[in-house]
Amino acid sequence: MDNKIKIGLFGFGVVGQGIYKVLQNAKNAHAEISKICVRSLNKPRSVEAPAELFTTSAAEVLDDPQINLIVEVIDDAAASYKIVTEALRRGIPVVSGNKAMIARNLPELIELQKKYNVALLYDASSCGSIPVIRNLEEYYDNDLLLEVKGILNGSSNYILSRVFDHGEDYASALGRAQQLGFAESDPTFDIEGYDSLFKLIIITMHALGVYVAPEKIFTYGISTIHDSDIRYAREKRVKIKLVAQVAKVAPDKFTMFVMPEFVGPRKYIYSVDDEYNGVVIRGECYDRQFMFGKGAGSLPTASSILSDIMARRHDYRYEYKKMHYLDRPSYTTDITLRVYVRYKDTPIPELLPFSKIHEQYTSDESCFVIGDISLSQLMEHRQDINATDVFLANTMSFFQNLD
Amino acid sequence: MDNKIKIGLFGFGVVGQGIYKVLQNAKNAHAEISKICVRSLNKPRSVEAPAELFTTSAAEVLDDPQINLIVEVIDDAAASYKIVTEALRRGIPVVSGNKAMIARNLPELIELQKKYNVALLYDASSCGSIPVIRNLEEYYDNDLLLEVKGILNGSSNYILSRVFDHGEDYASALGRAQQLGFAESDPTFDIEGYDSLFKLIIITMHALGVYVAPEKIFTYGISTIHDSDIRYAREKRVKIKLVAQVAKVAPDKFTMFVMPEFVGPRKYIYSVDDEYNGVVIRGECYDRQFMFGKGAGSLPTASSILSDIMARRHDYRYEYKKMHYLDRPSYTTDITLRVYVRYKDTPIPELLPFSKIHEQYTSDESCFVIGDISLSQLMEHRQDINATDVFLANTMSFFQNLD
Repeated sequence: MDNKIKIGLFGFGVVGQGIYKVLQNAKNAHAEISKICVRSLNKPRSVEAPAELFTTSAAEVLDDPQINLIVEVIDDAAASYKIVTEALRRGIPVVSGNKAMIARNLPELIELQKKYNVALLYDASSCGSIPVIRNLEEYYDNDLLLEVKGILNGSSNYILSRVFDHGEDYASALGRAQQLGFAESDPTFDIEGYDSLFKLIIITMHALGVYVAPEKIFTYGISTIHDSDIRYAREKRVKIKLVAQVAKVAPDKFTMFVMPEFVGPRKYIYSVDDEYNGVVIRGECYDRQFMFGKGAGSLPTASSILSDIMARRHDYRYEYKKMHYLDRPSYTTDITLRVYVRYKDTPIPELLPFSKIHEQYTSDESCFVIGDISLSQLMEHRQDINATDVFLANTMSFFQNLD
Repeated sequence: MDNKIKIGLFGFGVVGQGIYKVLQNAKNAHAEISKICVRSLNKPRSVEAPAELFTTSAAEVLDDPQINLIVEVIDDAAASYKIVTEALRRGIPVVSGNKAMIARNLPELIELQKKYNVALLYDASSCGSIPVIRNLEEYYDNDLLLEVKGILNGSSNYILSRVFDHGEDYASALGRAQQLGFAESDPTFDIEGYDSLFKLIIITMHALGVYVAPEKIFTYGISTIHDSDIRYAREKRVKIKLVAQVAKVAPDKFTMFVMPEFVGPRKYIYSVDDEYNGVVIRGECYDRQFMFGKGAGSLPTASSILSDIMARRHDYRYEYKKMHYLDRPSYTTDITLRVYVRYKDTPIPELLPFSKIHEQYTSDESCFVIGDISLSQLMEHRQDINATDVFLANTMSFFQNLD
């Protein structure tokens, strides 16, 4: 790699403009943007950049022999896939923030990195400014890891915060999140848990060395949350958080899912509010570590991208060390969870095969049941619990009283 | 480096025994302990290791051609210096946990690493299991850093926690900390702030690329804390924490010090209790990151040492990148702090040249003053404020309302 990093930037939205600003402040980065590829040259933008930097031709950027790093921060997973794989095939290193594209194509992207001996970095794709991937890859690179659990999506957390701490209603909280630029262009991505899911898949690869495809993972969001759920949580003095987790459930097994959870005040993630992200990393010896920082927004994400850009100065690559470990644990959904399911017309207690029911409440307005059920059964009955009158939340932690 | 890491371990106290246990659990570490050098072979130890591993001869370990990594976790800074520098001169990489030795000799240790092209890793020396050094070196390796501030000493924090949250008296809290193995053999090291100071020096080197010698840094501990201070803090609904910080106070200036601080409930470090450490890293773009984890104890420190051992498998070295930055900021003590000083017989308001006094309280029992004074003046009057009837605490943050 050349002494100076010359960046071909794809995308000049919220994050792309943030990168432009951050690079102007980072004098020691020895990095500059040589070209910016955008869909439309005429879109009004709040950050001014010289007109000659812009192009609408991806080829013009990829063909430029001066450019030695592609930074891709576009919002479209299909276009991102095309750009990133094409750059890797040409041996140009890439920094990408597109978690959906990365999570869906991780095995292929790892192969391409190996085959073309080229780096793809994507720390910014998970938890914005918190260096989760890098730490899992480099620092927690041993057998002692038990669990990674956290709030990985800033916009859904912002919405829940507004609802819980400020008494706002769900719709206006969502509107405000979009206005502030926290929510992606398609809000269902954040709200239905997919953004958290994609991050979780990436985290799991670096935590345990195992890839699990999105469709195999139970994912449940917050869009059907209802006043009665909020009231119930408040009565119990807990908050509802959208939590993603991967946990060892036996020495050779792990599970993972994304689901709202009732979180009590003693847990670290209880106090992760607004657009912040928080991740608890638990290990056999170090007990738990908690990392906390801004998970959304232009500059936090941009500064994370900057860290990836800087890492390229030192030829840093992910080595995916844990993929080569002996006795990698295997993925299971054969675990029992204790869940709260609120419903009205959908006859949840008849539909879901609870192995044990602990609480049941019925009223004209809304009903709920708290019971034990396996994760695989929840997945089989996804249709039932996806009804608009149903909301589900996890009520248990694998490591009770400890996070 | 050989495919398998063969460790010459110096020290088999609390941390050394922890490393031995942790390595037995970490099957993918490909690391084993080949020899253990101890002062006495006959000391009873809670962890059993084969007798043939032990020796009292440092030369026997350093001369062993099989050994390709020295791990040094002894409690004696002078002996640690001898072993570490000798190993580096022989080109043997070293992992060390001795913050006092490292902080005092960092410029020489950096030179030795360069001269003999050999690595010295010491992530375990700062904040036990929290990967602060590695993240400052690798992830926050740009110009955007504004402040690193935190609770870096587990035992003094444990003591303050017992006093504040459990109403214990200071002496019994100290005794309990020592009993639990949190406090070093010489408790003044923890309590008077030196342990935090040494960690802060190491952190500053990796945060800003500048070395500041211990004697140039204002350091004040908690040994003279008094019921009246605790009462005062409780009335104000704050906790007293022993806080170390390095902060940019101008684009080209930074300051650093270790001092008790009144910490309000809105600050992250307020909820860092017991033997935990917590570090806030603040940057221009990412706002703040908070890292939190166990900062003391056998296994947390040992697992941090394990991360350094594993890093050697990938030939990882600190590159001290920021030492080579343009426009490194320079150290200043020419800043104004607002401090609380409690006293009885020492006539503090006469002795200390406050530029402004904001509050003053006198009684037969104890008096205090809250006033503005420069850090350099505090250093000049160190003798006065070190009197046994005096306790000092910082009442301000550089980044108000934000951490």
